[in-house]
Amino acid sequence: MKSIVTIGGGTGQYALLTGLKKYPVRLTAIVSMADDGGSTGILRDELGVLPPGDVRQCLVALSEADVLMRDLFTYRFDKGGLRGHSFGNIFLSTLEKLTGSFEEAVLESSRILAVRGKVIPVSVGGMTLVCGKDGELRGEHAISRAALNDSGTLKLEPEAYANPRAVEAIEGADAIIIGPGDLYCSIIPNLLVRGVADAIKRSKAILVYNCNLMTKRGHTDGFSVSDYVREIENRIGEGRINFVTWNESAPNPTLLQKYAREGQPVGPIKTGEMTKFKLIGADLVSLRVPVQNPGDVIERTLIRHDSDVLANILIEKCLGGV
Amino acid sequence: MKSIVTIGGGTGQYALLTGLKKYPVRLTAIVSMADDGGSTGILRDELGVLPPGDVRQCLVALSEADVLMRDLFTYRFDKGGLRGHSFGNIFLSTLEKLTGSFEEAVLESSRILAVRGKVIPVSVGGMTLVCGKDGELRGEHAISRAALNDSGTLKLEPEAYANPRAVEAIEGADAIIIGPGDLYCSIIPNLLVRGVADAIKRSKAILVYNCNLMTKRGHTDGFSVSDYVREIENRIGEGRINFVTWNESAPNPTLLQKYAREGQPVGPIKTGEMTKFKLIGADLVSLRVPVQNPGDVIERTLIRHDSDVLANILIEKCLGGV
Repeated sequence: MKSIVTIGGGTGQYALLTGLKKYPVRLTAIVSMADDGGSTGILRDELGVLPPGDVRQCLVALSEADVLMRDLFTYRFDKGGLRGHSFGNIFLSTLEKLTGSFEEAVLESSRILAVRGKVIPVSVGGMTLVCGKDGELRGEHAISRAALNDSGTLKLEPEAYANPRAVEAIEGADAIIIGPGDLYCSIIPNLLVRGVADAIKRSKAILVYNCNLMTKRGHTDGFSVSDYVREIENRIGEGRINFVTWNESAPNPTLLQKYAREGQPVGPIKTGEMTKFKLIGADLVSLRVPVQNPGDVIERTLIRHDSDVLANILIEKCLGGV
Repeated sequence: MKSIVTIGGGTGQYALLTGLKKYPVRLTAIVSMADDGGSTGILRDELGVLPPGDVRQCLVALSEADVLMRDLFTYRFDKGGLRGHSFGNIFLSTLEKLTGSFEEAVLESSRILAVRGKVIPVSVGGMTLVCGKDGELRGEHAISRAALNDSGTLKLEPEAYANPRAVEAIEGADAIIIGPGDLYCSIIPNLLVRGVADAIKRSKAILVYNCNLMTKRGHTDGFSVSDYVREIENRIGEGRINFVTWNESAPNPTLLQKYAREGQPVGPIKTGEMTKFKLIGADLVSLRVPVQNPGDVIERTLIRHDSDVLANILIEKCLGGV
């Protein structure tokens, strides 16, 4: 059975895993630990725990438990003192407080949720994403909402080291799939963790990058596929990416107008531009428009990947079947 | 296998069930739904759910899951916005919000906690315990901390009706065990639910009442065993109780002094007093002094029953073995 490692965080990795888990492959999700917004941010601040939000999304995506358990982990309170919290986040944080170990909390939750595959925090130390020459912008949530002029200065404080289980998974993978996900706030925080980029360079795995559907205001305005790829390759070495998936269909104009705050469709490769990767264009936009939960203080991406279409391309075109 | 139904709430029923579950008997815990203090009270107010606290204690007592799951349900936050909440309460309330049914939440939690036996809310409607001729005192938590001159006026608002599953369990029981538990705030709220006292009267089960160890200030000052029994029999009919267990050993004087706020040891039957029940005196005090959780805003009883001694008496002396 082929081993696939996904690297990311947030709703992007959720969509990716939801599609991939329908195939007979061995899945490992490596998850960013830089998140500090919303429910996750409150739990980090108040309880001193590691960020549960991105891990929770991966656990739910890979869960084979009944729908009630998955709904439970996804449930978000919209009233009272618990408003904004996701139940799954509280679950993970309580287990971490109880066992003294975030990884043990993830393992125990995996058991309860009957997770097929593994969910591995990219690092098991606390970290803060920082940006600017003097580290003026602090925290993933703050950075996510700011205009970034200086994305090259992104770093983690304190210096974070890779979880040995993440390195092992990368080294043993048949395919490594990066993204989709917020470029500077979900994807690159994984690649900034010491040991991750090196493990990717060393690995013999096929490397796929799922480019975003939309640019992000203040972060990737006017970006084409090549711009995204360049940012990733700046971290893992030029020419390492074998395949790039890209949405070539224009999203529904009504949707585009409605969600103009999110940015614009990612631009195509320029005519005649040479690339070292194979570009796979397809209609990747999901027709399901997600509903923003009233208790959720984070603005989620509303134009998302179609899980099944994406997974099918990855398995059939990039991996050559299961 | 003999069927035992316990009726109560709080730490008393927890101790009772912890002891009884070591025997091969069929256990059903019927639980008061009048609680409105602490974490439970906040969840009732803010989320509009039924009170989870007493049910949670019974679930944990009857759980055969590993110690981590039981610790998880018992975990109480002592910091931040979650301070004072028990994780198990949040778990039950979230499941209730999700399924729209407290009973379903209890059933699902029973599954996750591998509960041996059944935990049944005495009623599935919301209710408030009220006291005083004109209902001046409102709410179990308020009543618990007030001086009661008028315990005969205790009632539930709105009128509460018995859960049919509770009635069925009472009717099919070989033994019904009432208490230990707070007389006016945990035990009698069960008996005030329409249909419960009648079912107890109708049932052919052996009826045992576990009298409290200590009186409660402002509630049962100066009470003897007979006073407690009279209060119970006022609700279920005189002469219905077959056995009464009573602690005949003086608790440790240091402990008594330290916890004088709780009241005094319950007084003995007066010399020559005739009783229709068989009194079983024993040394029932647990030597384990419980620790008050820093996040817990409720003052818990600190002089408690020894689970094993109590269960042994109930099984051997009241039921004549398993």
